[in-house]
Amino acid sequence: MVRNMPFCKVDIRKIVGNNIRGFRHKKDYTQEKLSELAGIHINYVSSVERGERNVGILNIAKIAKALKIPPHVLLMPESYDRE
Amino acid sequence: MVRNMPFCKVDIRKIVGNNIRGFRHKKDYTQEKLSELAGIHINYVSSVERGERNVGILNIAKIAKALKIPPHVLLMPESYDRE
Repeated sequence: MVRNMPFCKVDIRKIVGNNIRGFRHKKDYTQEKLSELAGIHINYVSSVERGERNVGILNIAKIAKALKIPPHVLLMPESYDRE
Repeated sequence: MVRNMPFCKVDIRKIVGNNIRGFRHKKDYTQEKLSELAGIHINYVSSVERGERNVGILNIAKIAKALKIPPHVLLMPESYDRE
């Protein structure tokens, strides 16, 4: 089954972390700015970007709102590079 | 800002719960079957479907894999109804 599902091979925490960093850079936001907008502690944002966190969907929604993108986009592999 | 972002008005826990239930029904899986395939306790699956859980992305990935869909699809409003 896994052979037909390449989207499952990469750790989703890394996908989400890379996307958040990518979209944040596109907006020229610092981690501090993003954490302020999302209402999430900067240390948490930092560890999420490093792919170290099993982020809950409520925080996914908060971060996506701060980045002005729909939440699901953060789970798509390298979505920040597609726009 | 919220006015321009209709995707933010609905609780993401409800979106995810409805999608999981919708895709599960499409596959004719019981909650028990889904919980077995995903390796997640049936009580947890049940509460996720009711929109009561702040599900972590690792469990989103497990459930999506069990339903044979990419993880991000579970965060798109009513995606189970689009296919």
